[in-house]
Amino acid sequence: MPQPRVWESSLGTSLSYWSREQLLEFWRDTGDLKTLANACRLNAITAIQYAGSGHIGTSLSSLDIMVAVRRFLEGDAFLKEVPHGGVFFSSKGHDAPAYYALLHLMGQLGDDDLFTLRRLGGLPGHPETITPGVPTNTGSLGMGISKAKGFIKAQRLANPDSRDPVVVMLGDGELNEGQIWESMPGAIKEGFSELIAIVDANQIQSDTWTEDTLPMGDLRKRVEGSGWIYLECDGQDPDQVLEILNQAQQSSTPTFIVASTTKGAGVPWMESFPQAGEYYKFHSGALAPVLYAEAVQILTRLVTGESAGSSNLESSRPEFDALTPKDRPESLLTVWEDVLAEVMASHTEVVALDGDLSYDTGTHRVRHAYPERYLQTGIAEQDMVSMAGTLALSGHTPIVHSFATFLTMRATEQIFNNATEYSRVIYVGFLAGLVPSAPGFSHQAVTDVGIMGSLPGMRVFEPSCRSEVAWAISEALSYDGPSFLRMGTVPPVAALSGTPSGSGLQLRVEGSSVALVTSGPLLAGEAIGAAEAAAADGVSVAVFTRPELSAPLSDADREILSRFDTVISLENFAPARAHHHGVSEALRGTHVVVLRWGIEGIPANGQPAEVLAHHGLDASSIVQLILQNRP
Amino acid sequence: MPQPRVWESSLGTSLSYWSREQLLEFWRDTGDLKTLANACRLNAITAIQYAGSGHIGTSLSSLDIMVAVRRFLEGDAFLKEVPHGGVFFSSKGHDAPAYYALLHLMGQLGDDDLFTLRRLGGLPGHPETITPGVPTNTGSLGMGISKAKGFIKAQRLANPDSRDPVVVMLGDGELNEGQIWESMPGAIKEGFSELIAIVDANQIQSDTWTEDTLPMGDLRKRVEGSGWIYLECDGQDPDQVLEILNQAQQSSTPTFIVASTTKGAGVPWMESFPQAGEYYKFHSGALAPVLYAEAVQILTRLVTGESAGSSNLESSRPEFDALTPKDRPESLLTVWEDVLAEVMASHTEVVALDGDLSYDTGTHRVRHAYPERYLQTGIAEQDMVSMAGTLALSGHTPIVHSFATFLTMRATEQIFNNATEYSRVIYVGFLAGLVPSAPGFSHQAVTDVGIMGSLPGMRVFEPSCRSEVAWAISEALSYDGPSFLRMGTVPPVAALSGTPSGSGLQLRVEGSSVALVTSGPLLAGEAIGAAEAAAADGVSVAVFTRPELSAPLSDADREILSRFDTVISLENFAPARAHHHGVSEALRGTHVVVLRWGIEGIPANGQPAEVLAHHGLDASSIVQLILQNRP
Repeated sequence: MPQPRVWESSLGTSLSYWSREQLLEFWRDTGDLKTLANACRLNAITAIQYAGSGHIGTSLSSLDIMVAVRRFLEGDAFLKEVPHGGVFFSSKGHDAPAYYALLHLMGQLGDDDLFTLRRLGGLPGHPETITPGVPTNTGSLGMGISKAKGFIKAQRLANPDSRDPVVVMLGDGELNEGQIWESMPGAIKEGFSELIAIVDANQIQSDTWTEDTLPMGDLRKRVEGSGWIYLECDGQDPDQVLEILNQAQQSSTPTFIVASTTKGAGVPWMESFPQAGEYYKFHSGALAPVLYAEAVQILTRLVTGESAGSSNLESSRPEFDALTPKDRPESLLTVWEDVLAEVMASHTEVVALDGDLSYDTGTHRVRHAYPERYLQTGIAEQDMVSMAGTLALSGHTPIVHSFATFLTMRATEQIFNNATEYSRVIYVGFLAGLVPSAPGFSHQAVTDVGIMGSLPGMRVFEPSCRSEVAWAISEALSYDGPSFLRMGTVPPVAALSGTPSGSGLQLRVEGSSVALVTSGPLLAGEAIGAAEAAAADGVSVAVFTRPELSAPLSDADREILSRFDTVISLENFAPARAHHHGVSEALRGTHVVVLRWGIEGIPANGQPAEVLAHHGLDASSIVQLILQNRP
Repeated sequence: MPQPRVWESSLGTSLSYWSREQLLEFWRDTGDLKTLANACRLNAITAIQYAGSGHIGTSLSSLDIMVAVRRFLEGDAFLKEVPHGGVFFSSKGHDAPAYYALLHLMGQLGDDDLFTLRRLGGLPGHPETITPGVPTNTGSLGMGISKAKGFIKAQRLANPDSRDPVVVMLGDGELNEGQIWESMPGAIKEGFSELIAIVDANQIQSDTWTEDTLPMGDLRKRVEGSGWIYLECDGQDPDQVLEILNQAQQSSTPTFIVASTTKGAGVPWMESFPQAGEYYKFHSGALAPVLYAEAVQILTRLVTGESAGSSNLESSRPEFDALTPKDRPESLLTVWEDVLAEVMASHTEVVALDGDLSYDTGTHRVRHAYPERYLQTGIAEQDMVSMAGTLALSGHTPIVHSFATFLTMRATEQIFNNATEYSRVIYVGFLAGLVPSAPGFSHQAVTDVGIMGSLPGMRVFEPSCRSEVAWAISEALSYDGPSFLRMGTVPPVAALSGTPSGSGLQLRVEGSSVALVTSGPLLAGEAIGAAEAAAADGVSVAVFTRPELSAPLSDADREILSRFDTVISLENFAPARAHHHGVSEALRGTHVVVLRWGIEGIPANGQPAEVLAHHGLDASSIVQLILQNRP
């Protein structure tokens, strides 16, 4: 009976995986696609386990489809020859661990590569072309059919007779995005019959059931209305998927296949659906060690054909209460949950809007407390923002929630349009800045300050502690225009003893020679650490946070900073008109040396510490910077 | 027989309109909605005629619907009482002249207001809430259903039992936009039965037939698949529209009405459809005087009931050849038409993409010359940009065309996603900057520099003459990353005698005391004018253009500028990291006084000269600025 290889990782846990050699043996011995898919399942969850995070549920649901698609594209050369390069990618991209397990099966990644997921220089948290075998960057939802059309157009330009299939996998939650529906008619117009979209229809999106989030109506009608062929199959049966793909290839129009799957497929206790109103427990994140060990057993037996037996860990499944989740470290997210609840209690004009990230943007409590003033719009940021606009024109104060990248870049024109109405709309974007760095740059917002700061009348806040969050939202609630709160989803620094004194400098660490000016919990924390370390080297370093990025420096703040020899602005975002700009303008003509230290270009992917160090923004890099620029 | 009032305008033309008093008389005498709609048609084209520009075709097609909707919302109080405030707006917004004619009919605008269209402080080129009776700002396409949902949610929060209808009018070209389809499922989820969307289905979008641009498939199936009721009617018959609206109100789900109309309805020679491959001639723009006079006669007879007679001007209809349009003044648009044709002749890897603005972004010639390397994607910017991304990954060089506002704000995340692939995609955005100022800020791009400049690796160019356009595109074609050419759609300044010397300062006017640094044809032209005028006041002013906004200043340029007493950066965009930023950084520590002069906040609407003066950016304001800051 074959057994997975075991690697005693630096985590102190045994990690199990099937080597490529073993995978090839399974194929020679059984010719069974399902066995290959189940073997890849183990490799996917192991990659996630070592990474410490990753999207488990969708990785498990999608693997039968993935293996079948590759078998379809390779034909009889499957696993015999080097992949011939037919185009297949996942538009949702969240299933990257599964996609990497597939690349490993195909021989495009080595065994060791599986253990580089979400590490600097390794496999990105969402697919990027930097990895061999990844055709395009995904992770931002909705772009897949458009991207497939670009590949097809290129194939036809190279060879007008080409009808090589291009297969894109979509998520069913992803169908919320307007771009999916925008992109379908053009495929008909161009006659792209070689386009096959296959939906991993696992029925659960980020928070909960797709039907509870945003029901998509009669998909068959919508798809056929766009002129596409609509097909259905069991997405957990790779042979059936293969058959339907062959059928699709005969079609003279593009094909849209809805493959029914189960989120967490393969591990019974991950397949257990949430009750109504509950959250799905295995959307993302690594498993507790005991659960990982159990999952390894279950997935191994699926491959070796041993009786699965009954889970003896059923009773140890993690408890999870949507209202009071356990084991959540304090972060600006948990702070925001509190503050938002207080705001909605005291401000009856406030309406919270949420784009399927209730649990990740802190709206889950008010969702239950104020259902009538809560709108779950699904993964439909443009729709959400435009609805917020007319709510604001009607006298309400909408607070729009999403991740900062999605909110500020998917709905930019809608935010601009609202801004031209001089109305009070408050945008709250989480995952702002470098960290969390593991999901990759589709989720790391570093362009948000430049973009939002370019929109008329927009006030941009970046609080670093509870008192700054409370101050920022109170400012936003009394401002007759739009505001953006960029929220770092990391632990806050200690709250100020009093209320922040306006938009200006908030003293965090006293010092006399070098001043660090920053904002947000991540760099405020690193700056405080750096100041303490620099003191040991005899440099007296002050740290200030500045919760409003868009404000010019006051005369009082100018006076404060002009007493230092050097002022360094630490910016957790790409170059923008923010701290450094304000400091430079304020100190022009003085003796003070003014520097910017922040993010340039595309942020690195990987574990937080290594990514911070890579960008020179961890405390010890900042100390070096200070020492190099000491007076 | 009633006759329209005549106003001898300052244009030297007689302008005809029906006063509100006359409109009320028609209603009392006839009770005929069609008569009212036809009377409003005259007022709409007259408003456009005095404004000098405006969207004629869609204004004429939409008026029967508009009058019927208002009759529906007011019931028996129609034209008897002050409008009760039921919500009706046009999502496409391009039909603003018709909407204003409706507001005039309803008594919400006075007779004189009709003659303020597209003038500073008057009626904006696209609707804005600043005008009484306009519920929300429109002009950017696709947001209408989302906005209607926000209004309904607000009504329900005020009164949970409210089912007051909210009516939004869409364009059929507008249905290309993904947000339309994104916004429909949420209306079902929320049970918004009072939502009525009515499509002014005039079958022609910006360039030509909707069916030739991007066929939308089986609308009934797509709409019913989203759970909405689908109805059809003759949109040129207001009584039928009224009947179908009453039917929609009985529905327990949202209703989507396709009202068939004719672009240019009411004036036979505007109704004449283009032949295949031709462009519709009356999408926007004022009429030649002789045509206006004829249209007045025709529309008057429609109201007075006189026999229409045959047009004696049939033979004088404007000739219009899509390939070699006449009477087009030279502008960066016509320059780009030439340059793009040359580029596509010499660079076979280039593919041009166009979002239904072939004629307005200069692609119409290559559309015919290189049909296989031209993609008309419809009004679907997100789809267009994501297709461009994978074309680039496949070795092609896509050049993506749209207006700068739409391109940089509707597809920001898609542009970012492409940028993270380090691929060569070239974005070309027209209507960049203050002018043309008449369409209003949905079309005036002033945020584009800040937004595009925030995206990783993006080079931002703003050429001001033919030689700078040629240089910018050659740079973009050899750069391994994304570029943005912001194109002012105004006459270029004189071309440089040689090739621009890299990204740096291009001397336009010699001078020794004050240097003006700018880019783009509009402000380069004003700066040159200002320098000449300042010379008369004894101030020696140099003018430099700088075709690449994103480049830091070279040492040589630093040296050049350090010889002046004052350097003023003139920026045809909102504050961004551009000229002033670069100049400030380069001249830090020198004696030179450095100033920025540019656009702050939301750009004003109106005629070019008054808007330039309003923002202090016309030559004479610049002279004042120079005199105030002379050494």
